[in-house]
Amino acid sequence: MTTSPTNPPTFEDVLSAAERLAGHARRTPMLESQLLNERLGGRLLVKAECLQRSGAFKFRGAYNRISRLDDKAKKAGVVAFSSGNHAQGVAMVSQMLNVPATIVMPTDAPKIKIANTRAYGAEVVFYDRETESREEIGEKLAAEKNATLVPSYDDPFVIAGQGTVGLELAEQAKEMGVTLDAVLIPCGGGGLSSGCALALSELSPSAQLFAVEPQGFDDTARSLAAGKRLSNEPGGKTFCDALILPTPGEITFSINRKLLTGGFAVSDADVAGAMAVAFRDLKIVVEPGGTVALAAILTGAYDVRGKTVAVVCSGGNVDAGVFSKAIAADE
Amino acid sequence: MTTSPTNPPTFEDVLSAAERLAGHARRTPMLESQLLNERLGGRLLVKAECLQRSGAFKFRGAYNRISRLDDKAKKAGVVAFSSGNHAQGVAMVSQMLNVPATIVMPTDAPKIKIANTRAYGAEVVFYDRETESREEIGEKLAAEKNATLVPSYDDPFVIAGQGTVGLELAEQAKEMGVTLDAVLIPCGGGGLSSGCALALSELSPSAQLFAVEPQGFDDTARSLAAGKRLSNEPGGKTFCDALILPTPGEITFSINRKLLTGGFAVSDADVAGAMAVAFRDLKIVVEPGGTVALAAILTGAYDVRGKTVAVVCSGGNVDAGVFSKAIAADE
Repeated sequence: MTTSPTNPPTFEDVLSAAERLAGHARRTPMLESQLLNERLGGRLLVKAECLQRSGAFKFRGAYNRISRLDDKAKKAGVVAFSSGNHAQGVAMVSQMLNVPATIVMPTDAPKIKIANTRAYGAEVVFYDRETESREEIGEKLAAEKNATLVPSYDDPFVIAGQGTVGLELAEQAKEMGVTLDAVLIPCGGGGLSSGCALALSELSPSAQLFAVEPQGFDDTARSLAAGKRLSNEPGGKTFCDALILPTPGEITFSINRKLLTGGFAVSDADVAGAMAVAFRDLKIVVEPGGTVALAAILTGAYDVRGKTVAVVCSGGNVDAGVFSKAIAADE
Repeated sequence: MTTSPTNPPTFEDVLSAAERLAGHARRTPMLESQLLNERLGGRLLVKAECLQRSGAFKFRGAYNRISRLDDKAKKAGVVAFSSGNHAQGVAMVSQMLNVPATIVMPTDAPKIKIANTRAYGAEVVFYDRETESREEIGEKLAAEKNATLVPSYDDPFVIAGQGTVGLELAEQAKEMGVTLDAVLIPCGGGGLSSGCALALSELSPSAQLFAVEPQGFDDTARSLAAGKRLSNEPGGKTFCDALILPTPGEITFSINRKLLTGGFAVSDADVAGAMAVAFRDLKIVVEPGGTVALAAILTGAYDVRGKTVAVVCSGGNVDAGVFSKAIAADE
């Protein structure tokens, strides 16, 4: 099989992805901090997906997609375009499964993401975020090589793979004996949020589900409010490099519009403050885009007082200079 | 009961501590990085004890000691002296069990350690590391308050509590289907290393066990080589604030001399490099003293090529400025 189904994935597809990922993806821990809970006046559980293989949740979707290719398609290889976390996930999985991988990345991607993608053996092709279309470059490369394009979010297998984060989160909450009032999930194209929503709406039905985005890139929040897919104004700036996308995915939004309560947008300063809290109180390294859901809690955008809430910290691939600048706010 | 037994603890005492800690201490994850393994040419498993409650393994020993006090002793309170991680462990456990706590800390302890100890509700009394004796101040305070002194390492219940790190590590290695060739453990007074050695010598009998210390504070390594307790030369300097102690404990050394193969010493520069690797490849925040065992692997002091080795990363309570300086080496 080289093509994905065109129907949106279901809860059963998330369960199937979990079966496929067993023994390959890491079951990342749910962390919490007593001091942080006291400050917030509620209980905050943090799904530390920055501790996933390749340093971000993207390993899950990539594995669920690429491992389903038939032998001929595996031999022909895969192409992906990504600012870096999907790049690393696809590169790592391709190396594991002996599949040639070509990754189209922006020239301004974090150094760690470029270095790791290459370290996993992938060929990296650069494009200029301002003047070139990564979609066009990716599709041209895939056609040339007869390779399979692995989308970073708008693909049923990719969404179902990312949904295993939500599946584990619901299971871990159950093991801890807690009922979640809400779950906040970082959102770029919507792969993680829609996948998690498939699992959480089934297993934690009383929890409200929210997407969190950077200010200026809150296309999903505005689209949810409008009931249709809206795009971001061009020219926005954020250091959340993982979440810079123009518009919600078609498949991801078809799920999110049914299952999410709404969305929040946070500023870069809010995100830096949340990175400092993750450093100080949780002892984890979270990259800017991975911290937006935590930031929405700390700013009070979602008020956790008297509640039990989970957030996903979705990735930790950040350059030392960016990280140090963010945590300096803590001193 | 207000006093501890005087006999060294045994493997059974570690099992008893594990029972007591169930549902209170966190089972911290074993992490690994494929890219790091490739660079090392072996398999390195990292027991991420920086993700323990209070940010360090010390919670375990403190809980195993303080929870065994009888009601009268609990009411009279506890006193401890510590550079900071034992302080936070004792303060957090005391708050949980409603026990008044007074902690004697050096004036130059990391800010995060002082702030958190206070945040857990303990009274902090400062002393000058150069001119005053924390033992004398601690004993005087305990006598005045009729309180129980909770030693930071040379106590059978404290050692057995820390030993649950080794117990989990052996269980997790078994779950992963690996046989460990060696385990490297950070060492100050020897509570963590001796406790882990009790568990690992029983459950991973073929693994060599090593203590790792900062250069200038390698009293345990030298004592193991000499077969008797030796002290450090005065005047040594290191930024591994958690491991600045004059000599191995009496009880801890009686265990370590039987069960450890030997010790390694690492420089502050080696430790900073290891903190950067933990940041980049493992996405965890580890403080200087918590990183020495990882540093011994990265410098090649213990050669992991072709082997499977575990290290304990024992704590993550580090100020942002110190952390940023360490990871800057990575850029």
